[in-house]
Amino acid sequence: MDIKSNIEEKGKKAREGARRLASLSTAVKNLALMEMADAIEAGAEGLKRENQKDIKAGEVQSLSSALIDRLTLNDKRISEMAQGLREVAALPDPVGEVTRMWKRPNGMQVGKIRVPIGVIGIIYESRPNVTADSAGLCIKSGNGVFLRGGSEAINSNKAIAEILIDAGSKAGLPEGAITMVDIVDREAVMTMLRLDNYIDLIIPRGGEELIRTVSANSTIPVIKHYKGICHTYVDEDADVSMAQDICFNAKVQRPGTCNAMETMLVHKGIADKVLPALIERLRKEGVELRVCSRTHLIDSTLRLAAEEDWNTEYLALILNIKIVDDMDEALRHIETYGSQHSEAIVTNNHKRAMQFLSEVDAAAVFVNASTRLHDGGQFGLGAEIGISTTRIHARGPMGLEELTSMKFIVLGDGQVRE
Amino acid sequence: MDIKSNIEEKGKKAREGARRLASLSTAVKNLALMEMADAIEAGAEGLKRENQKDIKAGEVQSLSSALIDRLTLNDKRISEMAQGLREVAALPDPVGEVTRMWKRPNGMQVGKIRVPIGVIGIIYESRPNVTADSAGLCIKSGNGVFLRGGSEAINSNKAIAEILIDAGSKAGLPEGAITMVDIVDREAVMTMLRLDNYIDLIIPRGGEELIRTVSANSTIPVIKHYKGICHTYVDEDADVSMAQDICFNAKVQRPGTCNAMETMLVHKGIADKVLPALIERLRKEGVELRVCSRTHLIDSTLRLAAEEDWNTEYLALILNIKIVDDMDEALRHIETYGSQHSEAIVTNNHKRAMQFLSEVDAAAVFVNASTRLHDGGQFGLGAEIGISTTRIHARGPMGLEELTSMKFIVLGDGQVRE
Repeated sequence: MDIKSNIEEKGKKAREGARRLASLSTAVKNLALMEMADAIEAGAEGLKRENQKDIKAGEVQSLSSALIDRLTLNDKRISEMAQGLREVAALPDPVGEVTRMWKRPNGMQVGKIRVPIGVIGIIYESRPNVTADSAGLCIKSGNGVFLRGGSEAINSNKAIAEILIDAGSKAGLPEGAITMVDIVDREAVMTMLRLDNYIDLIIPRGGEELIRTVSANSTIPVIKHYKGICHTYVDEDADVSMAQDICFNAKVQRPGTCNAMETMLVHKGIADKVLPALIERLRKEGVELRVCSRTHLIDSTLRLAAEEDWNTEYLALILNIKIVDDMDEALRHIETYGSQHSEAIVTNNHKRAMQFLSEVDAAAVFVNASTRLHDGGQFGLGAEIGISTTRIHARGPMGLEELTSMKFIVLGDGQVRE
Repeated sequence: MDIKSNIEEKGKKAREGARRLASLSTAVKNLALMEMADAIEAGAEGLKRENQKDIKAGEVQSLSSALIDRLTLNDKRISEMAQGLREVAALPDPVGEVTRMWKRPNGMQVGKIRVPIGVIGIIYESRPNVTADSAGLCIKSGNGVFLRGGSEAINSNKAIAEILIDAGSKAGLPEGAITMVDIVDREAVMTMLRLDNYIDLIIPRGGEELIRTVSANSTIPVIKHYKGICHTYVDEDADVSMAQDICFNAKVQRPGTCNAMETMLVHKGIADKVLPALIERLRKEGVELRVCSRTHLIDSTLRLAAEEDWNTEYLALILNIKIVDDMDEALRHIETYGSQHSEAIVTNNHKRAMQFLSEVDAAAVFVNASTRLHDGGQFGLGAEIGISTTRIHARGPMGLEELTSMKFIVLGDGQVRE
């Protein structure tokens, strides 16, 4: 069978599996997740053996040590995968919730009920744990999952998927509920991206290049974020030590994440009070600073930021600082350079707080809190499959609820259209 | 300027316009809609003149009289366009609603607030009124609208758009809020469908062929429905006269619509009671019947349905009838031939009503009501831009709320990530 037919055949089975899966009871789904977790742990030795093949191939291809590290499965990571599945099992089942119901003048009741989306395609790279994490969230929300991992982790991903499919099927999951594309050829992913009859949504997980390739080639809706260029604006009326703590946390607590701050904007009226001590504290933490000419006047040892710096997601201990005349200048800067991901203001001025919340276009907007809090767990949504800056369906952390859709139900007693 | 650059330039301006539009007050948006309505009426003579050019061109190209009719603007239709804009002005503004807000253990408040999607692309054919209807709904929900009508109505659409843009701009709408693609060349629409930086959502309005072309070529999410092959299942425990009334209404009240019934499924235990009188009534109304072999035993003058009939959206006074052994057979038939649009059961059996609601996968599922009620107005949602069977973002009637998205807002007092 050629690659296209192979992928289409898998798609058809996934659609059939998802139909069965949609009406499975919460108990069966949870049992499947628990059995999958146990099987992952029981299969640890086999997983590490298969993982070694990927690691050796990666070494032959001289992958960077960072990439090899992301690829590696050890006992701790295997146990975390299993634990993740158990945590998803413990979350409430989103399917079946009637979110609203109302009565019409003709007496019929109209309501909206939460249902699974259908089949979710996940396209990812490097980290094999995404196989189990994505499958867990999709199964719990009643969706079939169609997995396509990176070629560099093909043996690890296949081994994990086999364990999940086998354990899930014994616990009552329908055939096709979990599908793994094990063809490395690029034609496989290109076919998958046009399988709009069988896949309802694509979620790419990986670097910006992967996500751009997926978006440019998919006829299926893609929910994603390219990058996080996040700002914190310290207003004239900010509490100085709160501003320093929030900015320090947003940059330093975990700089490699998409919700870490890349640029700090400071009102000219408070810059003298906020910046010197903060710059000192950031320097001690090893943060490299790139600053505007006005900040440079405060400390002339600092490097001047180039235009491209305002546009860069560092994912590292590097921070831009810019002094602005007023909030409008901050808003314009965020509009120009921001990635609609996470944006914060520090202020005690109520009117400006409200204006910032209303005018800033981002998946999450913060008043007096660190952008690092933009996270499904921190927001109380449970586990998440990623953060979306897409403007339809779901923005922000995508948890179980965001992996569902709604259908209308109508309860009548003979109503017809007049 | 070449076509691609021209469309990209328009896209960029639409994005900028939509940013301004997103924070306009309800009062300004409503004023703009009212002014647009007045201007449409005031410009009636000019509109009819431009419309004549399209009609003459259509006659030269020998368009069908049905198509010419859909193309035609007369005083009544022009006044309906204006009235539609006024009705949208009278609907509540969906933007700014905080749908939920909750407190986290660290004291921060996390909420979701309704915001416009951004820029909505509308691709449509024939009916020039879609220009005004779509623009009205998009403007009210704070979205920029990027219109591309059919070449057969280009003069009419341009004239309507010019009036809307001019009146809207005088009332305070930003430049770029309403954009009309006036290039007939196919390259224009193909460029538009890949403008994912500037357009957030595509809604095609027209025949199945148009919608399939749009879906196959768009890298922007498309919300649509291809067709409505809608069923009514009359259960063994149905009230006979209610079943007859609902089925008659679902077929006859307006057969050319997507939510009209194309196939009636009847339990074998009630077929003798329901069918003869209903068949008589449908015949009197001029309905052509295509039936299964068991129905044929009841009335041997009826034509036997061919396999393709079960798969056809007639949009006409033609109805398939099939007698089934039980509800499972009905559910399997709906799964095989249905279009996930509108599906109904008539029954007094509570358990089967609940099972039907839960298992049938469609944008709207009805118990004891006509599928013709699947409509934004009937559901109480106000005006709609179409019905969606897409499985993400919005299913069913797309009203103002479905033209919005959500963003997270976080109100803190110094919270950082531990």
